[in-house]
Amino acid sequence: MSINQIGIVKRNIVRADKSAVEKLARFGVATVHEAMGRVGLMKTYMRPIYSGANVCGTAVTVLMHPGDNWMMHVVAEQIQPGDVVVAAVTSECTDGFFGDLLATSFRARGAQGLVIDAGVRDVKDLTAMQFPVFSKAISAKGTIKATLGSVNIPVVCAGALVNPGDVILADDDGVVVVPAAAARQAADAAEARESNEAEKRSKLAAGVLGLDMYKMREGLERAGLKYVD
Amino acid sequence: MSINQIGIVKRNIVRADKSAVEKLARFGVATVHEAMGRVGLMKTYMRPIYSGANVCGTAVTVLMHPGDNWMMHVVAEQIQPGDVVVAAVTSECTDGFFGDLLATSFRARGAQGLVIDAGVRDVKDLTAMQFPVFSKAISAKGTIKATLGSVNIPVVCAGALVNPGDVILADDDGVVVVPAAAARQAADAAEARESNEAEKRSKLAAGVLGLDMYKMREGLERAGLKYVD
Amino acid sequence: MSINQIGIVKRNIVRADKSAVEKLARFGVATVHEAMGRVGLMKTYMRPIYSGANVCGTAVTVLMHPGDNWMMHVVAEQIQPGDVVVAAVTSECTDGFFGDLLATSFRARGAQGLVIDAGVRDVKDLTAMQFPVFSKAISAKGTIKATLGSVNIPVVCAGALVNPGDVILADDDGVVVVPAAAARQAADAAEARESNEAEKRSKLAAGVLGLDMYKMREGLERAGLKYVD
Amino acid sequence: MSINQIGIVKRNIVRADKSAVEKLARFGVATVHEAMGRVGLMKTYMRPIYSGANVCGTAVTVLMHPGDNWMMHVVAEQIQPGDVVVAAVTSECTDGFFGDLLATSFRARGAQGLVIDAGVRDVKDLTAMQFPVFSKAISAKGTIKATLGSVNIPVVCAGALVNPGDVILADDDGVVVVPAAAARQAADAAEARESNEAEKRSKLAAGVLGLDMYKMREGLERAGLKYVD
Amino acid sequence: MSINQIGIVKRNIVRADKSAVEKLARFGVATVHEAMGRVGLMKTYMRPIYSGANVCGTAVTVLMHPGDNWMMHVVAEQIQPGDVVVAAVTSECTDGFFGDLLATSFRARGAQGLVIDAGVRDVKDLTAMQFPVFSKAISAKGTIKATLGSVNIPVVCAGALVNPGDVILADDDGVVVVPAAAARQAADAAEARESNEAEKRSKLAAGVLGLDMYKMREGLERAGLKYVD
Amino acid sequence: MSINQIGIVKRNIVRADKSAVEKLARFGVATVHEAMGRVGLMKTYMRPIYSGANVCGTAVTVLMHPGDNWMMHVVAEQIQPGDVVVAAVTSECTDGFFGDLLATSFRARGAQGLVIDAGVRDVKDLTAMQFPVFSKAISAKGTIKATLGSVNIPVVCAGALVNPGDVILADDDGVVVVPAAAARQAADAAEARESNEAEKRSKLAAGVLGLDMYKMREGLERAGLKYVD
Repeated sequence: MSINQIGIVKRNIVRADKSAVEKLARFGVATVHEAMGRVGLMKTYMRPIYSGANVCGTAVTVLMHPGDNWMMHVVAEQIQPGDVVVAAVTSECTDGFFGDLLATSFRARGAQGLVIDAGVRDVKDLTAMQFPVFSKAISAKGTIKATLGSVNIPVVCAGALVNPGDVILADDDGVVVVPAAAARQAADAAEARESNEAEKRSKLAAGVLGLDMYKMREGLERAGLKYVD
Repeated sequence: MSINQIGIVKRNIVRADKSAVEKLARFGVATVHEAMGRVGLMKTYMRPIYSGANVCGTAVTVLMHPGDNWMMHVVAEQIQPGDVVVAAVTSECTDGFFGDLLATSFRARGAQGLVIDAGVRDVKDLTAMQFPVFSKAISAKGTIKATLGSVNIPVVCAGALVNPGDVILADDDGVVVVPAAAARQAADAAEARESNEAEKRSKLAAGVLGLDMYKMREGLERAGLKYVD
Repeated sequence: MSINQIGIVKRNIVRADKSAVEKLARFGVATVHEAMGRVGLMKTYMRPIYSGANVCGTAVTVLMHPGDNWMMHVVAEQIQPGDVVVAAVTSECTDGFFGDLLATSFRARGAQGLVIDAGVRDVKDLTAMQFPVFSKAISAKGTIKATLGSVNIPVVCAGALVNPGDVILADDDGVVVVPAAAARQAADAAEARESNEAEKRSKLAAGVLGLDMYKMREGLERAGLKYVD
Repeated sequence: MSINQIGIVKRNIVRADKSAVEKLARFGVATVHEAMGRVGLMKTYMRPIYSGANVCGTAVTVLMHPGDNWMMHVVAEQIQPGDVVVAAVTSECTDGFFGDLLATSFRARGAQGLVIDAGVRDVKDLTAMQFPVFSKAISAKGTIKATLGSVNIPVVCAGALVNPGDVILADDDGVVVVPAAAARQAADAAEARESNEAEKRSKLAAGVLGLDMYKMREGLERAGLKYVD
Repeated sequence: MSINQIGIVKRNIVRADKSAVEKLARFGVATVHEAMGRVGLMKTYMRPIYSGANVCGTAVTVLMHPGDNWMMHVVAEQIQPGDVVVAAVTSECTDGFFGDLLATSFRARGAQGLVIDAGVRDVKDLTAMQFPVFSKAISAKGTIKATLGSVNIPVVCAGALVNPGDVILADDDGVVVVPAAAARQAADAAEARESNEAEKRSKLAAGVLGLDMYKMREGLERAGLKYVD
Repeated sequence: MSINQIGIVKRNIVRADKSAVEKLARFGVATVHEAMGRVGLMKTYMRPIYSGANVCGTAVTVLMHPGDNWMMHVVAEQIQPGDVVVAAVTSECTDGFFGDLLATSFRARGAQGLVIDAGVRDVKDLTAMQFPVFSKAISAKGTIKATLGSVNIPVVCAGALVNPGDVILADDDGVVVVPAAAARQAADAAEARESNEAEKRSKLAAGVLGLDMYKMREGLERAGLKYVD
């Protein structure tokens, strides 16, 4: 293993099974994250640039240095239809690494969206294009093209480890990463979780308390809960 | 007095006078906060989860530990029609303590909304339900049900003291707490403030300066203001 | 030069050339900022209070102390049609220095909008008025009128130096300051930048890679980029 | 009850029992906070201005507006020997509300220290005086004397409710508030906690695992913990 | 691969070569990070709890949930002499997961220190013990023991991926992670970097400019740098 | 005026009068800032890298891009004995732009210290050298040398405008900027302020209240302050 992970573009990556990705796309981030055992969620500062943005696809990853988006053009070539670009930076930066021109290019390559632990710009255009972006910041600040990073190496993006080929699911509740090898299992677990939600919802809507529906009263009493007037 | 305020559910609380609550609901947060002498405002990081959300009602309070929403089910039982649940956590946490199932339950019990110094999830569903929530964060991260907190004790939520029964008023400008015993007086003071705003507004719209309307020129000169060219 | 820049109102300021301002108004903040050599951008925490807000005009500046908006009334008198008020505070403060009454007054004087490194309130009314405001915070917290600041002195607002008369351009991507003397040149440079964007966009949309369009492959190879399988 | 809590100085307050305060002073913040059931801790951003600062005493409280320290002089008169001044501000502010002159005055009145949810200055002098201060910020920015606040009303300081007369305990681990009426009980509980720590410490130092000492293995297994190679 | 990485303790991990760890210990974090190609650095909010703290050792990792330190006792058993415990939390939390009792236990097991993306307490005692801790916060807030996490799985700690067995190097400049397989190479590269620093330092001390020593003048001129009077 | 302020090194700057700088060096930041009318203070996040660091000198300025410290070598050549380097970045960045080698070079050129709105590294060495640095962050992250910035143009550093030649005064209370042309006047005003502090201090130490010494009682009463029991 080389210590230097900078300056590498990995061309062949194993993407998560397509049908598993499609199945995951039917669920919300909260459901899938719960089904995963509550791991793999990005930090809550990652927000959609327009309300209602959502995306599900396989990760192609890119690691850049602060203020330098050269590798965005390198990753563009590695995009396959159905991919989501996941962009990380080696230290905190809010510059606008991405705008409408790159979005046009990414979309032409088949990208479903972008998840970036940094800033983006041309928000009005991106919204008009309905190109879903989840980012840490919005910034008009442009970047240079001077330093190598890497493409399709494992990256940490907004606190979550992303391996190329993993499934990225993002909606109003945030961004979750599902390891490629676990995609099918996660989709099935999400389905199982959701199957009994409808019944719960109608009970709760009818005024049944979670205390009773989930049989919590005994546990609370055992823990020492006291009702006073 | 016991040192331990944890593990208690107070069932009987004195809610603010209903007509005072209704009167307060006619005013904005800025007006009421101003009428209160500029106290009782929550921190500015408390934001509505959807644009236009607003709520006015009497507080039922819940104190939880980070990552644990067990008491949300306990507080649900204490909700009466017209209440707003005010949720505090013993240390900073952005986890999603609340989602569409709990919202369904709260609404069935008559809750008007939720104010929480933590995170919530299922934002899309909550928006579709038009269930007003003011929170510090949005997070898909679920919580456990293992630790007791308390219900209807005084809590500090986002920097403001909330006693059960106090009036909670929230809109695009933030969240303000009106002590139950002062609700009527605050409503009257808010009414008085607003009554002469229309006249001021039309004067200003006609080009009259605040400098003249509020007779500030003399005070500014006395303070030493100098005009230069 | 006096050390004390507090308590001064400068009445005569040199505003940027009107036709240059009008030309700048045709471009986005990202384009103009790029044309400026990537200087003059305010911090990314400056956000529009409603989606789609945008403004272009000449700066009248005001410097205030935390929690005190007295000078807002003083600056109102100095507004001329086409101006944007730029408000700075001597230390960090999120209080609501500005609301619908001041907006009514500013608009009556011809103001195009407000850029403030602090908080504002009455967001619902300001949105209804479509009065564009870019601020650091939204807060119902009112302010007092007790301390002098200054009007039309150079101020640092959200990290950017603003001289009275400079052009202020703000949209979804942020706020940029164009020095008055450079307005024409900046507008021309922005125009030049934008003229060849359409061609680039259609190439990228057709699947041409930035790697090829910008002829980056050789530079990347020289820098040591390695493709692996 | 009046809605307006501004402009009031309460002269007679009930301070926590002196012997209880003295007993609490023997324990660390972590121990007392634990003994209290994990409530009453201020936010972790409250830090000592010099390493090793610590204080224990009864609270006199002061509420001020941002950028205005007039009430600091009012609270000085209400200090009795053994008191700790607890200062809150109606909205977030980092200005330097306190420096060496006020420290000299407070000490002359018998104050043990200051806990302030804002900034202080003259840190070098305060350190030389060994006057313990726990604050949110250090700032040379001075304040004005124009607006009334209140003295000895309940305040929220750094997220914790403080009633005048409560015990304030602060050290390197933070600041905890003990309600006056619970001071004796908290001191006793802290003592009980600490009494068996020595034994635990020597066991752990000898290599005994917490897993065994606290008999956790069975619980972990029941929860489903799995050891793999 | 199972989706659920929670509830697992991996007992056998491959630790970095001991002699490589010892060699890395001779260098500072900045030097090693530079030698690594500028990857693997934790966020800058990770700070030593006392000035001068530093540590070098092999990682045993632990993943916990917010407010719950149960797994700290589980990881204690997996510590071998020379290890550094690296603790991550599934969402942001500043609670005090660690204090002097756990430090006593960890040290008895041979731990060199702790790196934790959360809070710790008993700072005074930890400092007296000279037990090096790098943390995000200091907090007296205790934690519960109710939820499973995992031990010795890959974790993301303060933005950096840590695999069990990796080398953790921390000093006043921050915390860097060296993958176990690259430890020798990183140590050699660090040595190479440092070998010519002494010569550079003496040249610079003698007044030679970096412009000349690094032969930058031509590059700057080519880039367009202009000197004006 | 050119729009492009990037890529320029100004060699001849007018430094503040030497005797005024020397006089200012006798005062603390809080005193000078107060004497200046409370303007010119940098943000409170600017902290000394070691306790007790302080500096006073004339500014040479440098503007850099995030992650790129090339211009640090350019500014080194412009340093004259008695100067303080003031470094700004075009967008927020915490990378380590400066370490012990540059400090050695700067000191050899006569620099008194560094004020930087970004990160630095080699903190242990800088402390051993007693080279005063005031920074926003400490970070081992190195930077590249690829992009031009400028030297000795006006910069905004941590919220304050700094013109080359201005006086920079920094100590435990923060960093203040005194315009070169106002240095003498500021020094005199600081002296005047300090001359009567000794008398005030001894009065307060004797138990005289600020209420009486500053004759505040009448003003407070007029403002409506009420004493209650």
